[in-house]
Amino acid sequence: MRPKVVIIGAGFGGLYAAKTLAKQAVDVLLIDRQNFHTFTPLLYQVATCALDPSDIAYPTRGIFRNKPNVRFLLGEVRAINRADKYITVKTNGQERHERYDYLIVAAGSVTNYFGSRDLARRAFGLKDLNDAVILRNHILKLFERALWTEDPVYRHALTTLVVVGGGPTGLETAGALYELYNHVLREEFSDAQNLTARVVLVEAADHLLGTYPERLQKAAYQQLKSLGVELMLGETVENVTEEGVFLKSGRFIPSCTLVWSAGVKASPTAQMLGVELQRGGRVPVLPTLELPGHDDVYVVGDMAYLEDLHGQPYPMLIPVAKQQGILAARNILCRLKGLELQPFRYHDRGIMATIGRRRAVAWIFYRVQLTGFVAWVAWLGLHLIWLMGFRNQMSVFLNWAWNYLTYDRSVRIILEHRRFDAAISETQIEVRREPVIEG
Amino acid sequence: MRPKVVIIGAGFGGLYAAKTLAKQAVDVLLIDRQNFHTFTPLLYQVATCALDPSDIAYPTRGIFRNKPNVRFLLGEVRAINRADKYITVKTNGQERHERYDYLIVAAGSVTNYFGSRDLARRAFGLKDLNDAVILRNHILKLFERALWTEDPVYRHALTTLVVVGGGPTGLETAGALYELYNHVLREEFSDAQNLTARVVLVEAADHLLGTYPERLQKAAYQQLKSLGVELMLGETVENVTEEGVFLKSGRFIPSCTLVWSAGVKASPTAQMLGVELQRGGRVPVLPTLELPGHDDVYVVGDMAYLEDLHGQPYPMLIPVAKQQGILAARNILCRLKGLELQPFRYHDRGIMATIGRRRAVAWIFYRVQLTGFVAWVAWLGLHLIWLMGFRNQMSVFLNWAWNYLTYDRSVRIILEHRRFDAAISETQIEVRREPVIEG
Repeated sequence: MRPKVVIIGAGFGGLYAAKTLAKQAVDVLLIDRQNFHTFTPLLYQVATCALDPSDIAYPTRGIFRNKPNVRFLLGEVRAINRADKYITVKTNGQERHERYDYLIVAAGSVTNYFGSRDLARRAFGLKDLNDAVILRNHILKLFERALWTEDPVYRHALTTLVVVGGGPTGLETAGALYELYNHVLREEFSDAQNLTARVVLVEAADHLLGTYPERLQKAAYQQLKSLGVELMLGETVENVTEEGVFLKSGRFIPSCTLVWSAGVKASPTAQMLGVELQRGGRVPVLPTLELPGHDDVYVVGDMAYLEDLHGQPYPMLIPVAKQQGILAARNILCRLKGLELQPFRYHDRGIMATIGRRRAVAWIFYRVQLTGFVAWVAWLGLHLIWLMGFRNQMSVFLNWAWNYLTYDRSVRIILEHRRFDAAISETQIEVRREPVIEG
Repeated sequence: MRPKVVIIGAGFGGLYAAKTLAKQAVDVLLIDRQNFHTFTPLLYQVATCALDPSDIAYPTRGIFRNKPNVRFLLGEVRAINRADKYITVKTNGQERHERYDYLIVAAGSVTNYFGSRDLARRAFGLKDLNDAVILRNHILKLFERALWTEDPVYRHALTTLVVVGGGPTGLETAGALYELYNHVLREEFSDAQNLTARVVLVEAADHLLGTYPERLQKAAYQQLKSLGVELMLGETVENVTEEGVFLKSGRFIPSCTLVWSAGVKASPTAQMLGVELQRGGRVPVLPTLELPGHDDVYVVGDMAYLEDLHGQPYPMLIPVAKQQGILAARNILCRLKGLELQPFRYHDRGIMATIGRRRAVAWIFYRVQLTGFVAWVAWLGLHLIWLMGFRNQMSVFLNWAWNYLTYDRSVRIILEHRRFDAAISETQIEVRREPVIEG
């Protein structure tokens, strides 16, 4: 019987691990709670009506169509039993055990509200496709509501969006929201000319894009400002209520929408491993990506805590997850063949962030610094190439070309998958309106 | 002050009424509970993973972007007060009154379960975009479940779909489901080769497509049969349970999916008019589309009951709704100008139904009868032209071309807009799993 490798998570880490093991002499079981792999860098474009959900989602089974040694199970992992080498998966309302010879844990990260119940209840995260569609529906509904609201204070709050976090996701979301509001929705609502749509970006540090060189930080600041986004640097969120967002400095922003991109932490799956966790709930691993003392368990991607040569943990970025997924798979194959395991070496090609129409910053190979139109074109091209599947690439290209040429956003539909019976829809809205409390 | 025309519903009837009144000397208020207009003939393609929801949805406000005399209100009509000439709309959780000088009621139709509580609870309708996405998610989930089910009886029920109704929607849905199952999903699930995917079409009459000439009825039958769909004619549904579908003849089909396209009735909005309703809950109207005795209220489309010269009611079809919407709007303008009102004359260009890849029937101008590939190309071309908006046309064309060339279905994602917290997601699934009981 061939060794069985179970992979938890079909994000970039798990997916590339499974791809590496495809057609090798192992049986692979890939587990995810979604039936698709999500191209997360473009989530904010789904949230801001620029792309369809299916444009950035690729059915996981389609990826392994002709790889009969990779099976897929749609379900949620509930427990990991390292002593008896099996995991428990909730699938179809039942619990199911799956034994493993090797386990790759790649469950990624979740939004970190740092224990704030109010934030968890009221803020919108942007970590998966559900988050993106929930935010899209919310924004479109509030704009509809604003038009029929007489009270100027409430109306203003309905069209004010606060984005917290000055990293790439925060910048991208703030820029895209501003463009959606002021270039699309206000144009479309002939009676909306008196609405003041406001987007505020709040960041605790006194600069944006913490890990970028100063020139690019300043360029990003200038580009966001020239677009129209209000920037509040050196500010942190104290509290969020129905009326708006309170900052620690005492400032208050009346708003019905807080998008939280100020922190992530490892998936709670990390706690199932029964080891002491590092900062951000991440699992400490050996350079070979094995769990220390357990050569049958590998942890990769956002969940793994591993320091580079300078003593800094590798960042929670897609290229890290992808390369770690591949290495974990290769190391399992090495072990099966009795070869020496390899340590992780990160091949970093640079970082980039887009801000809006013809606005971006890029730091390529940590040498070339690009800003503005050139950086934006580079960003578009690379993301199009990275996207999985020719159909999705074509569809995204079509949407981008259309949006660019027409100043339009194609996907401005409120779709909540509910029936319109009064009794039931009320319940559903209630349930859906409350984001989940996370630990 | 200009006369105010309120239009209930942004389907084909209401939309074309509003288009006709745009830039005329009236104020128009268009009300719908969705913020988009749906191209309903392609709903079954969304349900069977061939198209994205946004491909067939066009934002209503976008249609009236440069028509400042047309306003849009997102909400649900709760009452019509004909004596005092106002309507009550539930919007944003509040009730709002809107007065009118003229009212056009175009709220369309809903699925008719003929009072069966079990059907209403367990059957899947296919009348709006929510229905389509709910059915898509359901089918994909059951196929995932079937793969991991040991019990052969239950597994078989999971991959058996029963479609009830031998009209165009039933045929199209049955054909598309069969292709999705046997050409896409079974190929993709490498471990699914032993699954027997079965699609059964049940129709009460002893022939399909009641209103078509016999040659086309037979052609449709042959094409469905050659595709692989099982046909049960002269059969009606007795009951549906968790285990399957019981037919009146005593036959039982073990199945977890019943798609109901065997009947529609006028929207319950018809009951708000306080007049005696006709068959199917439709509102009897004068040939001018006015409510008898009330020259300020017009009813158009599926909701309106009007007999043609042969004493037959006009069918619930898009061209009827569209032409009635235009006529109602024109008659209001005539009345305002003191001109004579025109009676409704239906310009019928024919009917067509598609069955699957390269399979269709068409009856053009009720003279030319087309079947097979020619009819299929005609169907594709006309539906592409009828679709609203160049972006949507491009996107649908791209998806069709892709699906045709690759035998793929692009949109195979289960997207339920729920968060993955155990407590909350359980509730949501419960709520969503139960279709609504309709009167």
